[in-house]
Amino acid sequence: MTATPAPARVRLKPEERRTQLINIGLRLLTTRPIHEMSIDEVAAEAGISRGLLFRYFPTKRDYYVAVVEAAGRRLLRHAKAPEQGAPAERVRGIVDGFVSFVQRRKGNYVALVRAGAGGDDLVLEVFEANRRTLTDRVLDAAGVPDPTPLHRLAVRGWLAMTEEMAIGATDDVVTTADLVDLLVGNLEQVMERFASGDR
Amino acid sequence: MTATPAPARVRLKPEERRTQLINIGLRLLTTRPIHEMSIDEVAAEAGISRGLLFRYFPTKRDYYVAVVEAAGRRLLRHAKAPEQGAPAERVRGIVDGFVSFVQRRKGNYVALVRAGAGGDDLVLEVFEANRRTLTDRVLDAAGVPDPTPLHRLAVRGWLAMTEEMAIGATDDVVTTADLVDLLVGNLEQVMERFASGDR
Repeated sequence: MTATPAPARVRLKPEERRTQLINIGLRLLTTRPIHEMSIDEVAAEAGISRGLLFRYFPTKRDYYVAVVEAAGRRLLRHAKAPEQGAPAERVRGIVDGFVSFVQRRKGNYVALVRAGAGGDDLVLEVFEANRRTLTDRVLDAAGVPDPTPLHRLAVRGWLAMTEEMAIGATDDVVTTADLVDLLVGNLEQVMERFASGDR
Repeated sequence: MTATPAPARVRLKPEERRTQLINIGLRLLTTRPIHEMSIDEVAAEAGISRGLLFRYFPTKRDYYVAVVEAAGRRLLRHAKAPEQGAPAERVRGIVDGFVSFVQRRKGNYVALVRAGAGGDDLVLEVFEANRRTLTDRVLDAAGVPDPTPLHRLAVRGWLAMTEEMAIGATDDVVTTADLVDLLVGNLEQVMERFASGDR
C-alpha cells in the first residue's frame, strides 16, 4: 500500500467543520455499518487530527449519534406531504419521498437501521423520534384529525411494511412508482380496517 | 454483595447440558439484551465452570448464535398453520401463533430482534432463514401455489407490519384476538392488491 497524500488542511469555521465531519460519516455509511467506521479514518478524510475531531465530538458515540441524527433529518426532509391536496395525494408525497430515499441509498439505510437496532439507547431514541414524526405526518396527510392509539399503531405497522418493502424491492420485481401506488392504496385499506369497527 | 451459594453441580449428558445452557440464555434474554448477557453468569446459573461452557460453545458468539437459533425454532413451532382448512383459517393459525408468541415475551423478542439487527452476520442469517420459512408458510396457507417475487415482497412487508404491531400493541389499545383478525383481513387485501394488476 502506498500512502495517499493527506488532504491540504483547510481552516473551517466550527459549524462548517461539524457539518463536514457529519457529511463524511454519512458518505462512509454507504460503504460499511456504522460500528465499523473508524474515527481515525473520518479525521484523515477531513484532513484534521483525531484530537481536533474529539473537540467537536467528545466521544465516538457522540459522533455516531450526530451522524444518525443527520441521516434522520435527511429522511424527514424527503418524506414530506405537499401542503395542499387530497389525502391520497398528500400521503403519496410522504411515501414517494420515503421509498425513493431508501432506494437511492439502500446499503446506507440498512446500515443505519442495523446501527439503530444495535442497542444504543441514544440512537434508538433518535429512531423513535423520527418514527413518531413520520406517524404524525401520515395521520395528518391522511386526514385523521383526532387519531386514536389504534390509528397510531396501524400507521406504525404500515410504516414498518413500507420500510421493509422499500429495502426489499428491486426494479425487476416492482418499479418505485408502482410500489408507491401499492403502498398508498394499502394505507387507505389499513386505516379503514383498523380505524372503523368494521373488521 | 453477599455471594449466593453455587447450585449443586449436576452431571448431565452433553446434549442435556447444551439444552440447559441454551434455556438459561433464553431465560436471561427476558431481562436484558443479548449483548449484555455474560458468559460467566450463564456458567454460574448452570453450576459449571466457564471452561466447561466453552467446551460446548467455543466462543461467546457461538453461544449467542445457538440461543438465537433456539428462539427462532420456538417462534416457528408457534407460528404454524393447521394442516386443513380454508386459507383465512390457515393464515389465522400462523398469525395467532406469531402475535401470541411476541406478546407473551415482548422484552425478550425485542432484545432478540435488536441483537439480530445489531450486525452479526451469523445472527442475521438465522433471522433471514426464519423470515423465509414464515413467508413460505404464509404463502402456502393463503393458497398461493406459485408465488412471484412480488408475492414474496408483499408477504415480507406484511410480516414486518405484523411484527411491529405485535410489539407495539397493548391490551388497552387492541386485544390480541382483534389484532389477529385485523392482520388476517389485511393480508387478504395486501395479496389482492399486490398480486393482481388491480392497483
